[in-house]
Amino acid sequence: MSQPVYNFSSGPAILPPPVVRATQAAIGDLAGSGIGVMEHSHRGPEFMKVAAEAEATCREIADIPDDYAVLFLQGGASSQFFMVPMNFLSPETCADYLVTGTWSEKAIAEAKRYGEVHAASSSKDKNYSYVPDASAIKYSASPRYVHFTSNNTIFGTQYASEPAIPDGAFLVCDASSDIFSRPIDIKKYGIVYAGAQKNLGPSGLTLVIIRRDLLDASVRDVPTMLSYATHASNDSMFNTPPTLGMFVAGEVFKWIRGEGGLSAMAERNEAKAKLLYDYLDASKTFYATAAPGSRSLMNVCFRAHDEGIEKAFLAAADSAGLSGIKGHRSVGGMRASIYNAFPKAGIEALLRQLDRF
Amino acid sequence: MSQPVYNFSSGPAILPPPVVRATQAAIGDLAGSGIGVMEHSHRGPEFMKVAAEAEATCREIADIPDDYAVLFLQGGASSQFFMVPMNFLSPETCADYLVTGTWSEKAIAEAKRYGEVHAASSSKDKNYSYVPDASAIKYSASPRYVHFTSNNTIFGTQYASEPAIPDGAFLVCDASSDIFSRPIDIKKYGIVYAGAQKNLGPSGLTLVIIRRDLLDASVRDVPTMLSYATHASNDSMFNTPPTLGMFVAGEVFKWIRGEGGLSAMAERNEAKAKLLYDYLDASKTFYATAAPGSRSLMNVCFRAHDEGIEKAFLAAADSAGLSGIKGHRSVGGMRASIYNAFPKAGIEALLRQLDRF
Repeated sequence: MSQPVYNFSSGPAILPPPVVRATQAAIGDLAGSGIGVMEHSHRGPEFMKVAAEAEATCREIADIPDDYAVLFLQGGASSQFFMVPMNFLSPETCADYLVTGTWSEKAIAEAKRYGEVHAASSSKDKNYSYVPDASAIKYSASPRYVHFTSNNTIFGTQYASEPAIPDGAFLVCDASSDIFSRPIDIKKYGIVYAGAQKNLGPSGLTLVIIRRDLLDASVRDVPTMLSYATHASNDSMFNTPPTLGMFVAGEVFKWIRGEGGLSAMAERNEAKAKLLYDYLDASKTFYATAAPGSRSLMNVCFRAHDEGIEKAFLAAADSAGLSGIKGHRSVGGMRASIYNAFPKAGIEALLRQLDRF
Repeated sequence: MSQPVYNFSSGPAILPPPVVRATQAAIGDLAGSGIGVMEHSHRGPEFMKVAAEAEATCREIADIPDDYAVLFLQGGASSQFFMVPMNFLSPETCADYLVTGTWSEKAIAEAKRYGEVHAASSSKDKNYSYVPDASAIKYSASPRYVHFTSNNTIFGTQYASEPAIPDGAFLVCDASSDIFSRPIDIKKYGIVYAGAQKNLGPSGLTLVIIRRDLLDASVRDVPTMLSYATHASNDSMFNTPPTLGMFVAGEVFKWIRGEGGLSAMAERNEAKAKLLYDYLDASKTFYATAAPGSRSLMNVCFRAHDEGIEKAFLAAADSAGLSGIKGHRSVGGMRASIYNAFPKAGIEALLRQLDRF
């Protein structure tokens, strides 16, 4: 028997094995209809049931109130980077961004096309190795919204909780890489968006949770497809949605519920990350790059003090069954992405391999 | 043994059975990597190979010259409706649209935000039951581009060949519902785009073929994700692409090649459609709604002279194994969508059922 392969990819990333099996089955035949899930009309009763269940289960596990719309869109977080300011930032207003890495920088670059942008905090001074605390945030006089990236895949940092924001602003979160990894209090947010390919399903699906009062608050005439109201008033079926992605996400939501919900995910993720961080903190060879207090439970970035050891570790990783553990090309080193579906056994395999160096 | 189910859905639509099986297998394990295709990093060697093969096979079957970029995007044709004028239509210029139904109307509505729009021909006078011929087209003085919808899913009409266009303009085609159903001379086009969910793969993937000189010809500063140049210069990997959709499309391209290419598709599609149109033309009960000469080989729209018979036919369709044959909600009646992957046996089953009325 060949050794197991552990998938440390930062995204697209590991999915729960029962979800993978359910998807294989549904691609052959969705619910006994004789037609596979990729081949069903999005407006037929079989797929409408899939879509309704995906939304309902999403609302259930994250306790999403009725005054929020749950949208299944396309284009990834990269499209939300411009859709948010295109809809909500006018030249006379300012949006505040908390800058904690590459993704918030990209979000800011898109926002600048539409109005004033203020970087209310930044951890660039230390190569984004930490998340600035509340005292370091200097908001503008009256921001329209405050945008933050809850988890930073590249630098391995994560907000422990939502930043407090000024009255009158609404909070926007790029939660692509930690959504549903822990309980979330949706009522604190105006918009939460996430590319699906870390914790929710395959790439090509974007989950957007948006407070309904914002649907009518767009500041400019935008293309029909770029209006949140279009998608909300058509239950994400103004155009043909990414049907397979919605099926997979629905299965992931059911899997999360079956495993005990978001609290159970949080407990498990904390335990998995602790195993690895504790090892790294005790190691004389390897070290975690993110500052304590800012460390991500999703992406554990680490390096070796000796460059030769780092190279040797990476060269041997694949043959040791550790796939996708090389750090992002912009920072180097190693990165263990250990999302909801990543098993504890994979961390243990990684520790055994680290022990060899 | 239960009777076969024939999938007449207009999209998402039937896929070739070997493609469905290959997808099921790859979702479990891509090419012996131990990791499923949905779970591989888009930048890892395994998926990079999938992406490169998909593009190469696409170029091969459609004979796409090197001076065209082949892009795998998201957002469907509905996003191309605004991306084309956003990039290429300025307030001082005019774009000409050939209006043959709902989809060209929607495309025009988005274009009007960006510049002048001229409807150079329209078949609205007869409820879009035909495609106006060349003599009916009245171009504006100097259109930037000419846009047409090669096949109209709702009204069941199709252009037999590309319209001739004025010097200096480039041709843009929404080929969502007949792409690769017959040979295509790409050199006649500036841009061909198609949502994948009829002839190419699952929904959530959009194929865009664009002449490279247009990549530098955008007339305004657009969000990074809405620039064709962004995607072309990053081989469709500026952001995380819809990886599973690209895998499936790659398998569809290989299937087309294995079946004899686009000429073989055309022969087969002509034969399938002829069976059905010949039957309808000879029937005293049913009739095709599209005008001869404009009839689609992909979507055969038909009605019964007697409304009661139509209702009875539709009520009995599912139990006869004819799935998704109801016409679009805006026009009623019946529609047999018989894309590349639809088998001749399904037409024969339909004819047997029509015979019962």
